[in-house]
Amino acid sequence: MELKKKIDEANQEAVNRMINSKLVWVDVRPAIEVIPGMEKNLILHAGPPITFKRMCRPQKNAVIGAVIYEGLASTEEEVDELCASGEICLEPCHEHKTVGSMCGVTSASMNVLVVKNETYGNSSFCLIYESPERERLSFGVNSEAVLENIRWIDSNIAVGLRAGLKEAGSSIDLKHIIARALTMGDELHSRNFASTALFSLELMPYLIRSSVDNQIKQDVADFVRRSDQFFLHFAMAAGKAIADAAKNVKYSSIVTAIARNGVEVGIKVSGLGEQWFTGPAGIIEGLFFNPYGPEDAQADLGDSAITETSGLGGLAHAASPSLAIIKSGDANDALRITEEMKLICFSQNPNFGIPIQNGAGAPVGIDIRKVMNTGILPLIDTGIAHKEGGQIGVGNARAPKEAFKKALEAFGKMIKSQSK
Amino acid sequence: MELKKKIDEANQEAVNRMINSKLVWVDVRPAIEVIPGMEKNLILHAGPPITFKRMCRPQKNAVIGAVIYEGLASTEEEVDELCASGEICLEPCHEHKTVGSMCGVTSASMNVLVVKNETYGNSSFCLIYESPERERLSFGVNSEAVLENIRWIDSNIAVGLRAGLKEAGSSIDLKHIIARALTMGDELHSRNFASTALFSLELMPYLIRSSVDNQIKQDVADFVRRSDQFFLHFAMAAGKAIADAAKNVKYSSIVTAIARNGVEVGIKVSGLGEQWFTGPAGIIEGLFFNPYGPEDAQADLGDSAITETSGLGGLAHAASPSLAIIKSGDANDALRITEEMKLICFSQNPNFGIPIQNGAGAPVGIDIRKVMNTGILPLIDTGIAHKEGGQIGVGNARAPKEAFKKALEAFGKMIKSQSK
Repeated sequence: MELKKKIDEANQEAVNRMINSKLVWVDVRPAIEVIPGMEKNLILHAGPPITFKRMCRPQKNAVIGAVIYEGLASTEEEVDELCASGEICLEPCHEHKTVGSMCGVTSASMNVLVVKNETYGNSSFCLIYESPERERLSFGVNSEAVLENIRWIDSNIAVGLRAGLKEAGSSIDLKHIIARALTMGDELHSRNFASTALFSLELMPYLIRSSVDNQIKQDVADFVRRSDQFFLHFAMAAGKAIADAAKNVKYSSIVTAIARNGVEVGIKVSGLGEQWFTGPAGIIEGLFFNPYGPEDAQADLGDSAITETSGLGGLAHAASPSLAIIKSGDANDALRITEEMKLICFSQNPNFGIPIQNGAGAPVGIDIRKVMNTGILPLIDTGIAHKEGGQIGVGNARAPKEAFKKALEAFGKMIKSQSK
Repeated sequence: MELKKKIDEANQEAVNRMINSKLVWVDVRPAIEVIPGMEKNLILHAGPPITFKRMCRPQKNAVIGAVIYEGLASTEEEVDELCASGEICLEPCHEHKTVGSMCGVTSASMNVLVVKNETYGNSSFCLIYESPERERLSFGVNSEAVLENIRWIDSNIAVGLRAGLKEAGSSIDLKHIIARALTMGDELHSRNFASTALFSLELMPYLIRSSVDNQIKQDVADFVRRSDQFFLHFAMAAGKAIADAAKNVKYSSIVTAIARNGVEVGIKVSGLGEQWFTGPAGIIEGLFFNPYGPEDAQADLGDSAITETSGLGGLAHAASPSLAIIKSGDANDALRITEEMKLICFSQNPNFGIPIQNGAGAPVGIDIRKVMNTGILPLIDTGIAHKEGGQIGVGNARAPKEAFKKALEAFGKMIKSQSK
C-alpha cells in the first residue's frame, strides 16, 4: 500500500509536469546549430536504435537521401560501408531531444523547429513539415524531386518562418493553438486542419510585417495553405517538450516515449530514465488509398506517437469524429477510443478539453501498470507508408504488448532494488 | 392528397435550390455601386419595415451614425425630421438583396461583400465585419470612435480584401469554407472561428501576392486575426444568396427570410413572394457578459437569422458543442437543438454534414406547416445587444409563433384562390 502510494505520487508529479508545460515556438535553425550533439556525419532517425542493415526499406531510403543531401555519399553501398565503419553515425532522434515524422530522418543542414517548454526550461526539435505529397523523404522516398523540395524548404520556408517568428518577438504560443484546435476537430496527430489554419492566422500578420522578400512570404503562405498537416511537426515538437519534462521522476510508471522504426517499437518510462523497452512494430488498420492494401504496408513507423505520449492523437481522438469517419466510417469510434484510453492513463488534462465530452480533459499519462493490468494497448493515429516508400493510407496502430511487459519487469526490479 | 403532393413537390424544389446553390465571393464595393436600388439618401436596416420613430434605441443610434457617416445630418432631431419628410428613406436590407448584422444599418458609402450564387445567378450583399469590440454601430453604438473605425474599414480593409480577391481571380469558394468549418466546430452564426481561420488561410497567399500597399496587407491580416467572427458576414451574404434562390416557388411553404428589427420579427415564405408576416421580437436566453442580465437586453435583432433560414446557425447547432457549452454549460444541447430543428425542416443538406452525427446533413428548409403542426419555433443563435447599444451576450432566440400563424393563414388563402 505504501508502495502504491509512492508510485501514485510519482505519477501525479510526472503528469502534473505534462499538464503544466507551457509550449512556445522560439526558433527555426539548421539542425547542426541547435540540436544537442548534432554532427555533420550524424543522421538521426525515428524509433529506438537500429543499424542501417536492419532498417526497413523506407527508412534506409530516407537515410540515403539525407546522406546525399549532406554530400556525404551517393550510393546505398557507400552508405552501408560508411555506417559499418562508423564514418556515418545513426542515432535515434529521441536521444537528441528531437522527434521525426515516419522515417524521421534528420540531418545537419535541415532546418528544425525549436520549441521551448517555458515551465521546465527544456527544448525540443522537429523538422519543418516536408510536403503534402505522397512521395517524400519522411515516407521513405529518395529522389531528386524530393531532395529539391527539401532544399526549397531550407532556403525559402525556413527563412520565411524565421522572419515571421522574429517579428513576433521569437515567441508563438503553441499550447493555446493546440487547446483551441481540439475544440475544432483536430486530435493533433492525423488531423491538423484547425491547428494549421490557426497557426497561419497567428503567423501571417508578423510574416507580412517582416522585411523578408515578398516571394518568400508568398511561398510560406502558399505552402501552409496547401499543407493540411503543416502543424503536425509543431505538435510533435511540443509533445516531445511535454514528455521530456516528465522524465526521470523516481518511481513513476508513466510512459515518456513511444517511437517506431518500422522494425521495432520502443518505449521509455519516467522512473526508468533513458532505457528503451522494445517489441515488434505492428501492422496498421485503417484506410488505404486506392489501389493499395494492407499487404503493401510498412509496419508501424515514426516518432509521431509522441503526440499520444503527451496526451494528444489517439488519446484525444474524441475531439475528431471526422477522422474516425475517414478511418472506419463510424464517428462514434472517436469517443470509444478516448474512453478506452482513459482506462490506461493516470489522469486527464484540464487544458486540453474535448467539446463533445462537455469540455472534459483528454486522457494523459499512459501508465505501464494500467496497460498490463487491462491488456489495453495505446492506440496510435498514424500515417501508413508503403513498404517501398510513399504514403498509402491513414490508420490505427497499437504499441506492442512486449514493450510494456519488459518495461513493467524492469520497473518491478527497480522498485525491488530501491526498497532494499 | 393531391394538394399535399403539390406542396411537397414545391418544397422539394425550393430546398433543392438551397442545397444546390454554389456560393462564391466575387467583389467588395461601396453599397451605392452594387446594391440594387441603393441611393445616397437611403439607409438600409435589419428586419421587416419600420419607421424611425418606432425603431428600438440601438437601431435608431445606428441610423443616426450612418446618417452622420454619409454627411446627411448630424443630430437625432434632424434625422427624425428628414425621415418624416422622406428626404431620408429607410428600407429593409432584405428588400435590396442585402442582410445586415444586428441593427443591420447599411449606407451608400459603406463597403459590402458581394456574393454570387453561381447556380442560380442571383447576388447578395452584406457589410464587411465591423469589429470584435462590444461597442460598434451594428450593436447600436454611435460614437466618433465607432465611425472612425468604419472609415478605416472602408479605406483599408475593403481595399485589401478587394486586392486579394482580385488576385484570386475574383472568385473565392464560400460553400467549401462553410462545409469544412462545419467539421471544425462552427455553426456559422454565433461561432465562426474555423471559417475565419480557413478564410484567412485561403486569402493570405493572394493578398501577399497582390500589389496593394504592405500596410494594407498588415491591416487585413491583423484585423482578421483579432476578429473571431469575421467570416459571419460572408456566411450571412451566402445565406441570403441561398434563401433568395428558393424564393417564389409556387405552392412552397418553405421560409425564405427571418429578420428582426428589435421590435418585430418578420418572415417570408417561398410561395408567398415578398410579403412579410410579423410577430413581436422575443427576449433572448443565454450567456450575459458580466455585469449584464436579461433586464438590460434589447429584444431580438438582426438579419443574421438568414443563417438559420439557409440551414446553418441554430439548425446546424450539432456541429458546435463548444457554443452550447458557452450558452448553457451542456454540450448535448447542441445535438438536441439540431434534432429538434429536424422536426420543422423539409430536408437535410448533404453538403453540410455534421461529423458527430456521422456526417448526416444539417436540417434545411423550415416548413411553416411543420412549425405550426409541432409548435416548435425555429431556434436562432444570436448576439445580444444592450437596449442602449453595445453587445452584452450570446444566446438563443425563437422566431415568434404569430409570424408563422399569419403566414400559414395567408398560405391557406393562396392555395384556396389558386385551386378555384
